[in-house]
Amino acid sequence: MAVIVQKFGGTSVGSTERIKNVARRVARWQAQGHEIIVVPSAMAGETNRLLALAREISSSPDPRELDVIAATGEQVTIGLLAVALHELGLKAKSFTGPQVRVLTDSTFTKARILKIDQERMRKALADGNVVVVAGFQGADEHGNITTLGRGGSDTSAVALAAALKADECQIYTDVDGVYTTDPRVVPEARMLESITFEEMLEMASLGSKVLQIRSVEFAGKYKVKLRVLSSFADEGEGTLITVEEKRNMEQAIISGIAFNRDEAKLTMLGVPDRPGIAYQILGPIGEANIDVDMIIQNIGRDGTTDFSFTVNRNDYRKALGILDQIRQSIGAREIAGDNTICKVSAVGVGMRSHPGVASRMFGALAKENINIQMISTSEIKISVVIEERYLELAVRVLHKAFGLEKPPKATLGLTGRGETDIISPA
Amino acid sequence: MAVIVQKFGGTSVGSTERIKNVARRVARWQAQGHEIIVVPSAMAGETNRLLALAREISSSPDPRELDVIAATGEQVTIGLLAVALHELGLKAKSFTGPQVRVLTDSTFTKARILKIDQERMRKALADGNVVVVAGFQGADEHGNITTLGRGGSDTSAVALAAALKADECQIYTDVDGVYTTDPRVVPEARMLESITFEEMLEMASLGSKVLQIRSVEFAGKYKVKLRVLSSFADEGEGTLITVEEKRNMEQAIISGIAFNRDEAKLTMLGVPDRPGIAYQILGPIGEANIDVDMIIQNIGRDGTTDFSFTVNRNDYRKALGILDQIRQSIGAREIAGDNTICKVSAVGVGMRSHPGVASRMFGALAKENINIQMISTSEIKISVVIEERYLELAVRVLHKAFGLEKPPKATLGLTGRGETDIISPA
Repeated sequence: MAVIVQKFGGTSVGSTERIKNVARRVARWQAQGHEIIVVPSAMAGETNRLLALAREISSSPDPRELDVIAATGEQVTIGLLAVALHELGLKAKSFTGPQVRVLTDSTFTKARILKIDQERMRKALADGNVVVVAGFQGADEHGNITTLGRGGSDTSAVALAAALKADECQIYTDVDGVYTTDPRVVPEARMLESITFEEMLEMASLGSKVLQIRSVEFAGKYKVKLRVLSSFADEGEGTLITVEEKRNMEQAIISGIAFNRDEAKLTMLGVPDRPGIAYQILGPIGEANIDVDMIIQNIGRDGTTDFSFTVNRNDYRKALGILDQIRQSIGAREIAGDNTICKVSAVGVGMRSHPGVASRMFGALAKENINIQMISTSEIKISVVIEERYLELAVRVLHKAFGLEKPPKATLGLTGRGETDIISPA
Repeated sequence: MAVIVQKFGGTSVGSTERIKNVARRVARWQAQGHEIIVVPSAMAGETNRLLALAREISSSPDPRELDVIAATGEQVTIGLLAVALHELGLKAKSFTGPQVRVLTDSTFTKARILKIDQERMRKALADGNVVVVAGFQGADEHGNITTLGRGGSDTSAVALAAALKADECQIYTDVDGVYTTDPRVVPEARMLESITFEEMLEMASLGSKVLQIRSVEFAGKYKVKLRVLSSFADEGEGTLITVEEKRNMEQAIISGIAFNRDEAKLTMLGVPDRPGIAYQILGPIGEANIDVDMIIQNIGRDGTTDFSFTVNRNDYRKALGILDQIRQSIGAREIAGDNTICKVSAVGVGMRSHPGVASRMFGALAKENINIQMISTSEIKISVVIEERYLELAVRVLHKAFGLEKPPKATLGLTGRGETDIISPA
């Protein structure tokens, strides 16, 4: 008997008919003797409807109140799903985030989970219930309702799985797994059987909208076995997100091409080149709760340097305003910005042992005359910032350049490292 | 500076525009230096929409889960109203029922309030906030979400007013006060300046849908000054619901004609006439959480008697089923039922000192050939059960028979009791 957390996205619970389908799927798992915790999102469109109501009243509604409003979306779904489970003859009980004490910090609209009390869920499971917990929400130490930000239900599911030491956390979504890139951009994109946490993290943070980034961080940190599956297909094992060592069959150099359209670039030109400048610029940005992604500082000339970074496009105006305010005190010459850029990345643990990935990438882009504005690299990822209008072209070109449309060779000895990999018995 | 609780019904908060209007009204009161606690209902239609979703999944959804679902309606409104108040430059903070610890029993879908913790509201008021509390909801001792049943927001408002020892509890609704009867049935119906708690209780329980019965009970018990006002008109003092002694101007014999269409009658025929029979019949009905209204037992004949009672029409089938189950063990001959009846009542504290009210009532109905099926009386009320199709006719006839279309004579010495009443200074 295993403890399994199953998360269902908004599309999967988008109507009462679909909620009944989810209940049937949960029932099949429970019939196999597993203890099930289900974490549904709000019904598709519901969160947007609720936030739109608030925006009809105010152009900048108070975040605390937004959370009070938005948290109701998931609360409706848990009740409906519990009712659907009862209808199949199962015992089931719903709980809101605050009810199972999903303790978060007080950063309304993007709170972070600090702790989860498992007592109430354990008791309900022991009583034979399917436990239905509202994703996306929690409460801070003062009992204020908080939400975890868009896609936060994934994080809720993984955090619950970690707290309950679940055997697997299954993320049901409207795709059947993780692909080498978005199939809407590249029709030849291929589903991956498995992907490492690190790769998934890079894919997620770069805009592959399958999983929320924090959920993958959480899963990696707490060693939660994570699986992405389709909530519509009855077949298919989906994509397993796992630690690198177990992933031998599919050792390609690059696992996927990720991209993110919602980017904006800001540059402070002619910044005095002295220690502490980065902190002086990014401190106020961080205090305003704006996430900074890529950061690049050019080599100084004549005692000054240029300092660039990218933020989510929604935060562009706000970030620009902050730079305006601090420009004089920093002694910078000028501020420049561009919110028609995008980021495209090649991701893969294979590049650790394969030099030449960067040059193959830059070559492919150069051949199409796509100008690279910024470059950022990590051990398993190379990202470039380019003009937004070249996004689809760049993704297609890179997908082909790394041969991602072909399944990787699964023969022993042919993996990137040239070592004989151990294959575990099926 | 007064502490005022203001409750706004679903129609009053039925759109974001209307929520803004409510915010403006609240702001005017706060500008006068009062401490305001606002208790909004769910937006009109929202509770029905939510319950309909549950009924799409199950014909008899679990009450605990229904409450989880239904409670979200008010939660959305409190957030939106707080945002609207901020937009006017006011400080405001919303709280759900569980957040301000509205402790109830565990009777899901019609829970009763046991206790309210005022600490959190006091603190928010002291910080200069308008406090916005979700009506209709609370939590039981285990932290389960509960709702108080239809119209429960009135009860929430009065209970909050009692807990905070508020100076007045204002119930804003889509009518401008309490009328002598429903103006849709009798166009000559007149708004009352004041009415006693006892009368209001009888009016409310008999179907005058202005206020929920429990809210009036609560208000009477805890001496909360209650006022019914229109949320659409800016003028008007509404109807004050008060204790009898302060009500001298308007001492008519009868204050109003109330009626209730949602009635059903059940009769157990040929019941052995022995002690304990009433309990044997009504015990199982009560255990099934069915409220019994009128109860009549005829004089026994040949050792048997007939036992009749009325219930809400929604509970008719359920009650009939229970009687079927217990008929044999009780030894009753037969069960009869009728769900096409209604109840019409004349209500007024004046009848205490005026004999002859009953005969005037029965005479007026007899003149129209309306057959009376059951009669029940209290100190300040006479109710009759009649065929539903005569409802409007009966109400019109009685309204006229007691001269309710004319304002009561407000001259000293002309009140019903023939005493000189004291008029308090304006």
